Amino acid sequence: MPYVNIKITREGATPEKKAQLIREVTESLQRLLGKNPQTTVVVIEEVETDNWGIGGVTVTERRKTGL
Amino acid sequence: MPYVNIKITREGATPEKKAQLIREVTESLQRLLGKNPQTTVVVIEEVETDNWGIGGVTVTERRKTGL
Amino acid sequence: MPYVNIKITREGATPEKKAQLIREVTESLQRLLGKNPQTTVVVIEEVETDNWGIGGVTVTERRKTGL
Amino acid sequence: MPYVNIKITREGATPEKKAQLIREVTESLQRLLGKNPQTTVVVIEEVETDNWGIGGVTVTERRKTGL
Amino acid sequence: MPYVNIKITREGATPEKKAQLIREVTESLQRLLGKNPQTTVVVIEEVETDNWGIGGVTVTERRKTGL
Amino acid sequence: MPYVNIKITREGATPEKKAQLIREVTESLQRLLGKNPQTTVVVIEEVETDNWGIGGVTVTERRKTGL
Repeated sequence: MPYVNIKITREGATPEKKAQLIREVTESLQRLLGKNPQTTVVVIEEVETDNWGIGGVTVTERRKTGL
Repeated sequence: MPYVNIKITREGATPEKKAQLIREVTESLQRLLGKNPQTTVVVIEEVETDNWGIGGVTVTERRKTGL
Repeated sequence: MPYVNIKITREGATPEKKAQLIREVTESLQRLLGKNPQTTVVVIEEVETDNWGIGGVTVTERRKTGL
Repeated sequence: MPYVNIKITREGATPEKKAQLIREVTESLQRLLGKNPQTTVVVIEEVETDNWGIGGVTVTERRKTGL
Repeated sequence: MPYVNIKITREGATPEKKAQLIREVTESLQRLLGKNPQTTVVVIEEVETDNWGIGGVTVTERRKTGL
Repeated sequence: MPYVNIKITREGATPEKKAQLIREVTESLQRLLGKNPQTTVVVIEEVETDNWGIGGVTVTERRKTGL
């Protein structure tokens, strides 16, 4: 019955990679914690690099300056 | 003062239906828990079917295979 | 397949009221948007009044000053 | 190591303003709680006015009626 | 730089299992999407069974009735 | 009308520091983006160090090993 929310910057993750990520996380939850995969929900959110900050700096700025 | 976040797959919910959903959830919180509707916030997020998984499978794949 | 997260201040909501809230929100999503209730997940989170701010002031402070 | 999620209605916030917001929130967490800015993550999400309700009414409707 | 939030019902997950879950999810994000594990944040939230509903029914009620 | 969710590890933040954080974030949103402070909601969540991972390792483990 778990709910998993994965936020990543929007930088070209393919549907195949995202589907594989959903499979793996669901499988980890089943194997490690015994959670029922049929009711495990995984939601991926892709966020613009202007809207994501780390170290007080947006990812857009970090990419420009080579951080 | 509640905050409600509703995530659904993006599949054509109309503005009218979403407005009605916001009304009903706000009303339930007022009637059942006595929460002030004036400061009740409801945010709906619509997620691409590629980015939503249940049972380890994306909704995109589920729709294709008739799940 | 919706996922709903409801955050409220922790101020004595009973299990019966919370169960009723879960029922009503699930029903609204089914009736208005045709969402399958069997895979609708609703999670309620109760937050200490020290940790909830509105208008720049915590709920703890608001209650003390009659706001 | 904090994680901050800021949801606002999508109404034209510029990249510069958002970058400044990320800087300020990261700085507040460092100064007030001693949190390491290098691992502080801030994610801004901009939500359509149709999908945001307060007082049981969407922001789209509120803007039309001058609320 | 991903942020992952995993919500599960509070039913005795051990620190060792949770640490392993964090390791595996971080590793999946690195291997599949090339995400830097050093800035990947995973937060697990454990929710009381009274506060978790699926199919319109709380997990507390489901456990009692053998659902 | 913004909603801000701040997640930190539970390590003794005082009510006074949290109240000040709520004030500052609300003020930043007003000054930078023109958001109405009266309807700005800030929710702080404090998470056990066992449940927070970065770099694939829980904060509990990091503290033990001097990371």
